[in-house]
Amino acid sequence: MSKVNVNKVVVAYSGGLDTSVIIPWLKENYGCEVVAFVADVGQGADELVGVEEKALASGASECYVVDLKEEMVKDYIYPTLKTGAYYEGKYLLGTSMARPIIAKAQVEVARKVGADALAHGCTGKGNDQVRFEGAFAALAPDLHVIAPWREWDLVSREECLDYLAERNIPCTASLTKIYSRDANAWHISTEGGVLESTWNAPNDDCWAWTTDPEKAPNEAEYLTIKVEKGEVVALNGKELSPYEALIALNEVGAKHGIGRIDIVENRLVGMKSRGCYETPGGTIMMEALRAVEQLVLDKTSFEFREELGIKASQLVYDGRWFTPLCKSIMAAAESLAEDVNGEVVIKLYKGQATATQKRSDNSLYSEEFATFGADDVYDQSHAGGFIRLYSLASRIRSLNAAKK
Amino acid sequence: MSKVNVNKVVVAYSGGLDTSVIIPWLKENYGCEVVAFVADVGQGADELVGVEEKALASGASECYVVDLKEEMVKDYIYPTLKTGAYYEGKYLLGTSMARPIIAKAQVEVARKVGADALAHGCTGKGNDQVRFEGAFAALAPDLHVIAPWREWDLVSREECLDYLAERNIPCTASLTKIYSRDANAWHISTEGGVLESTWNAPNDDCWAWTTDPEKAPNEAEYLTIKVEKGEVVALNGKELSPYEALIALNEVGAKHGIGRIDIVENRLVGMKSRGCYETPGGTIMMEALRAVEQLVLDKTSFEFREELGIKASQLVYDGRWFTPLCKSIMAAAESLAEDVNGEVVIKLYKGQATATQKRSDNSLYSEEFATFGADDVYDQSHAGGFIRLYSLASRIRSLNAAKK
Amino acid sequence: MSKVNVNKVVVAYSGGLDTSVIIPWLKENYGCEVVAFVADVGQGADELVGVEEKALASGASECYVVDLKEEMVKDYIYPTLKTGAYYEGKYLLGTSMARPIIAKAQVEVARKVGADALAHGCTGKGNDQVRFEGAFAALAPDLHVIAPWREWDLVSREECLDYLAERNIPCTASLTKIYSRDANAWHISTEGGVLESTWNAPNDDCWAWTTDPEKAPNEAEYLTIKVEKGEVVALNGKELSPYEALIALNEVGAKHGIGRIDIVENRLVGMKSRGCYETPGGTIMMEALRAVEQLVLDKTSFEFREELGIKASQLVYDGRWFTPLCKSIMAAAESLAEDVNGEVVIKLYKGQATATQKRSDNSLYSEEFATFGADDVYDQSHAGGFIRLYSLASRIRSLNAAKK
Amino acid sequence: MSKVNVNKVVVAYSGGLDTSVIIPWLKENYGCEVVAFVADVGQGADELVGVEEKALASGASECYVVDLKEEMVKDYIYPTLKTGAYYEGKYLLGTSMARPIIAKAQVEVARKVGADALAHGCTGKGNDQVRFEGAFAALAPDLHVIAPWREWDLVSREECLDYLAERNIPCTASLTKIYSRDANAWHISTEGGVLESTWNAPNDDCWAWTTDPEKAPNEAEYLTIKVEKGEVVALNGKELSPYEALIALNEVGAKHGIGRIDIVENRLVGMKSRGCYETPGGTIMMEALRAVEQLVLDKTSFEFREELGIKASQLVYDGRWFTPLCKSIMAAAESLAEDVNGEVVIKLYKGQATATQKRSDNSLYSEEFATFGADDVYDQSHAGGFIRLYSLASRIRSLNAAKK
Repeated sequence: MSKVNVNKVVVAYSGGLDTSVIIPWLKENYGCEVVAFVADVGQGADELVGVEEKALASGASECYVVDLKEEMVKDYIYPTLKTGAYYEGKYLLGTSMARPIIAKAQVEVARKVGADALAHGCTGKGNDQVRFEGAFAALAPDLHVIAPWREWDLVSREECLDYLAERNIPCTASLTKIYSRDANAWHISTEGGVLESTWNAPNDDCWAWTTDPEKAPNEAEYLTIKVEKGEVVALNGKELSPYEALIALNEVGAKHGIGRIDIVENRLVGMKSRGCYETPGGTIMMEALRAVEQLVLDKTSFEFREELGIKASQLVYDGRWFTPLCKSIMAAAESLAEDVNGEVVIKLYKGQATATQKRSDNSLYSEEFATFGADDVYDQSHAGGFIRLYSLASRIRSLNAAKK
Repeated sequence: MSKVNVNKVVVAYSGGLDTSVIIPWLKENYGCEVVAFVADVGQGADELVGVEEKALASGASECYVVDLKEEMVKDYIYPTLKTGAYYEGKYLLGTSMARPIIAKAQVEVARKVGADALAHGCTGKGNDQVRFEGAFAALAPDLHVIAPWREWDLVSREECLDYLAERNIPCTASLTKIYSRDANAWHISTEGGVLESTWNAPNDDCWAWTTDPEKAPNEAEYLTIKVEKGEVVALNGKELSPYEALIALNEVGAKHGIGRIDIVENRLVGMKSRGCYETPGGTIMMEALRAVEQLVLDKTSFEFREELGIKASQLVYDGRWFTPLCKSIMAAAESLAEDVNGEVVIKLYKGQATATQKRSDNSLYSEEFATFGADDVYDQSHAGGFIRLYSLASRIRSLNAAKK
Repeated sequence: MSKVNVNKVVVAYSGGLDTSVIIPWLKENYGCEVVAFVADVGQGADELVGVEEKALASGASECYVVDLKEEMVKDYIYPTLKTGAYYEGKYLLGTSMARPIIAKAQVEVARKVGADALAHGCTGKGNDQVRFEGAFAALAPDLHVIAPWREWDLVSREECLDYLAERNIPCTASLTKIYSRDANAWHISTEGGVLESTWNAPNDDCWAWTTDPEKAPNEAEYLTIKVEKGEVVALNGKELSPYEALIALNEVGAKHGIGRIDIVENRLVGMKSRGCYETPGGTIMMEALRAVEQLVLDKTSFEFREELGIKASQLVYDGRWFTPLCKSIMAAAESLAEDVNGEVVIKLYKGQATATQKRSDNSLYSEEFATFGADDVYDQSHAGGFIRLYSLASRIRSLNAAKK
Repeated sequence: MSKVNVNKVVVAYSGGLDTSVIIPWLKENYGCEVVAFVADVGQGADELVGVEEKALASGASECYVVDLKEEMVKDYIYPTLKTGAYYEGKYLLGTSMARPIIAKAQVEVARKVGADALAHGCTGKGNDQVRFEGAFAALAPDLHVIAPWREWDLVSREECLDYLAERNIPCTASLTKIYSRDANAWHISTEGGVLESTWNAPNDDCWAWTTDPEKAPNEAEYLTIKVEKGEVVALNGKELSPYEALIALNEVGAKHGIGRIDIVENRLVGMKSRGCYETPGGTIMMEALRAVEQLVLDKTSFEFREELGIKASQLVYDGRWFTPLCKSIMAAAESLAEDVNGEVVIKLYKGQATATQKRSDNSLYSEEFATFGADDVYDQSHAGGFIRLYSLASRIRSLNAAKK
């Protein structure tokens, strides 16, 4: 395949080994200027400190670091949470939700610096390439997309390190790296190493953020969470921004070993992969939101919200964020979340977050209706008529069968 | 409402206060012979010992006790589990799954004794009346249905006890009963008392079967479970029948505090109720089955199985067991479960059952595909074409917008 | 059942026999003042001329006639059309969509006149009672609802006529009435008579509005319809309001025999009924909107819109208009309709409306992509990679099976 | 891309220009033996007469013609019809349903002749390449797949004709061919030519099988169709095999101009295409099956069958026939179809097939229930209770709102 002609490319840069190689590789193979773009999505100081210097040392002409933390929680995470999305019943979509906002900010940098191409460091086997390029197709179909991992012939960390060494580009990356990890404010994922066999249990070192539940405090801890329109707005009486709330819940959740999952999932590209994900704060948030929903959503609304959750989980996982379908699904979930106000007490204990108390001004639960005694709103004699009509088709069908 | 003319009625009898009152009440109000029917669905010896004597002492002409335990697990629970049904995301449908098999056996007794009516002891506010009468409509539309709770004017335990005392019918029921409970081999449910306010956490005495996770063993325990066609067939190397497997898992699960939920749910009859459910063995079974599914089901099959789970949970909860729709949904799930064979290790620890190891001859997971390195089946260069076509509509849409 | 205490009731009055009886019946049985409310939903001058006089002559203290025609098309019909709803694959929901707006306006009159009750003339076997009372429950749960047909013992037209004659209330209704009909601007429905046997074909007199296709013009007629955001905004170059467009399309559609259906449908109350519906303008509108959607909606959006159509058809038919679920579904459809702009030519010929030409600035169809020849956006070589990944799970599954 | 090493390839051969070129091209480019495989799926004598000679003259070592007509209708078309699948609301999937059975038979020939590769003549822009290769992946993942249209550089009919002329391979294909067509017993599709602009109406010559409705008989014709388990088993009193029934209905349907559609559809590969499809017999079959369903399926079953139709339409269109999901969906539809027995009279008139009469021993329609008068099964007073419970959540929600 002949290379396209490119003048200036903006690369999604992390400071890790892969993207450090990508900068010189792009310059050499495309003869173009390379601008580094670093998204601050809460991956932590470890990855951000000195990242600009690293980028320049690797040959970038400029480096933009953009803080996306509040926007990510507000505009990407909450709309997803309102749908109740768990990918394949378990995964809280931590990596998936971060990709569209990173891609969008990267396009904005490209427009600003007048770039004609975009590059990313995702491999050819994963979902992230689809998420980046799906967003690019929707937001900047005129820009070229370069995916070095699908083009070059480097196939090991050793070759990548050699590549940098040959060019005297400083790099602190180690030769061996057991696990492949991705972190943002919402979660950290861990793949590879011992996890490559599904018959291996995760090792202790598979878990990066959370305390082992067996070593978590022996005393339970209780949180009071206030929810408005499907979003956490206060913790233990203190109002917090979306990102602040997440960080605070991450801290207390991690202490109690909350939010670990170990899953074999279907990638979009047709294969399965196995990963360990830690989402301490997010797991608590979901427990709180679902608890308020229990009070507020009627039966048919609840069922539809569950269906939206399945659909949204697929769309977000599959990199379909910037599509009319995703927008439509989110509009439906937003509408249902309008009533989702209330207060929840969550118990944290050795890996479990459990809503133990809940209340809401919009609660459809009523002590009077649910218990014995005559009342105005519910009359038991209504039930006979209800059941009769409810099962009428069964009755007719059965009477038909008896006639034959 | 004038009473229908009835000669012989079969009543679903539990030995509890309500159904003990129902027997004389039916005789007095309908002038008919009353046959007691007791379903043994694993509710335990407490409820079954001496139940026949009690029924006869209350005035029943006969009492049939029918063992439905194996049949319930095999023909009612497993078909439901294969759909992955959790009602409103949480509830494992313990009461719901037992009702249709009880109703079916009750109809069989009615046919045997030549009865012309069926009676049950469900209140007019709950789901169970719909489940019984929905089954009756499908299986015996020619038989009259009597629901004493919707007819009589007894409104308290005290009145019920007085009713029996006036007739010299012996009864050991206590005047006060804090909680309303229902048990079978699959679960025990608890409602009422402190649970009536959703702002109250459950008390210790809300939980009947399971150890409090805080008091459960400090050492985790590991089980090896063998799954075939979506059913548990062996535990720690020992082959077990469906019911035996459930009982064995109940015991070990209860010890570790597994399977507690506390939920506010939407009843079919339009109101919400709050209940605590304990399903220790069932929770472990679900974890095992879902773990094998992770290995075996492809992406689109997994998504459909999740949709089937939502649909089945509604049908089973709503008493729609004996309907063409339920049969159709179960046929779809049965088809998907054909490949669900494998082995799972489950860790039990302080309230949590977690699959830590899993393998299957039908696994679509492959270490080779998921990791680096060239291979025959997956070629990274394919991904570029995939993504291009996958996002083509987004690209065209965006190009259109740019033209305006 | 003892009657509730009522001072003033607003009755949904049509001027027909049933509601003419209801006015005196309410006065006699509830000892209350009766206010008549007539909704003008385009049912036609026949039913509206002199309706106020009739109501007063029947004993109403006042009569309110409210014009709801434009609002009905704009706020009830269009939101439904955007979902693509056909009940059970065929029925365009003519009666169903009118009920919520009538009920809402009736509640407004009740608030205005200080009434404490609402009454309607629907029978106890149909869907309309549920639609009215479902709306009342959502909008005015504090008002009593009286459904005379479920209370009184009148069971024939003859008895109703006698009832009026005994009270010297003038009535021009005939003793026999073959068909039961309901009309509004959107459609007219016909039930009863020969239609009661599904083995009878509809008679000529079953159809009230439309020309028999066999007698329709032998020459086809062509209309050019402009669509914006999923709504018809112009016909043959002339801008029209929603109601005007419907009326214009009704006229030309009826001439060509468009929009007849004959269906056996499932009522909400558990039985089936058979009806003939005529929706000439609506059928043309649906053809136009669906044609633009073909150009504009991508594959996954189209599929979701079809699912929304099924869900919305159930909700609207079942009288669930004023529910959070209906609002959520409509929000999703509204979002998808944002791009649905374009122009369509519709051919009308002997009962069929067929889109023969269509175009849109938002069209995702491109001659270049669809035909031969190299192009920038679509490269055939991409397809190989796409297919490989798309069928990867099938390949792995099959390779697994071969190993056994 | 270097060519794989192939000894013997089985090519899906039609006798048309493309596949005539493919035979010598495969021999020259892969140096392999080429076996021609012709599927008789009812495409007609025009394409089949002399096809074996043509194949051998083009250089094939052998030619297998396999009759798949009955099997196609019985095992591919009927399972799809039972789901009620219309792709994007309109298309009866004629080409889509034929591909898996052709691919399966092609694999069987490959096994018989010991081939190590499979080839097809589909272009790189269409759906058929995915359908063939999806089936190959599921049935023969060990065989190489060659898609010449994605490999060679021939881009026009002229180049194809030159290619054959240079090799002295006789060919009767014309230089210009306005439309691209595909036919089998179920339908004929037409693409290209004037249809390439969506603003062009189809020409007369776009339609190949059916009479123009405007030129169809002025007299309607009536058919009596007997349906068993969702399949047509007799026409006008005469029992017919599945294929015979289809052929008979095609003939009478074509005469009356039945089954034309003109659609812009979403291809799986991301672009839209426009086609005219003629499915005369199939359209009548669908009308008959849906008519019996109206009598037999209860409300919730009908709704689920509609959902199955959407899902199946996507799976079949997308080449997912041999997948666990497709098997599961078909199992669900098969289950629902068990009751779909009955008789229907269909009126054919100028392009429309309309069920005018229908009856079934399994009909849930009952004249008695649907009309006035007291009866045992339906008591109007039940409706009050039904509605009260049905709208209870709305009532509570509204009462809540009033409190604020």
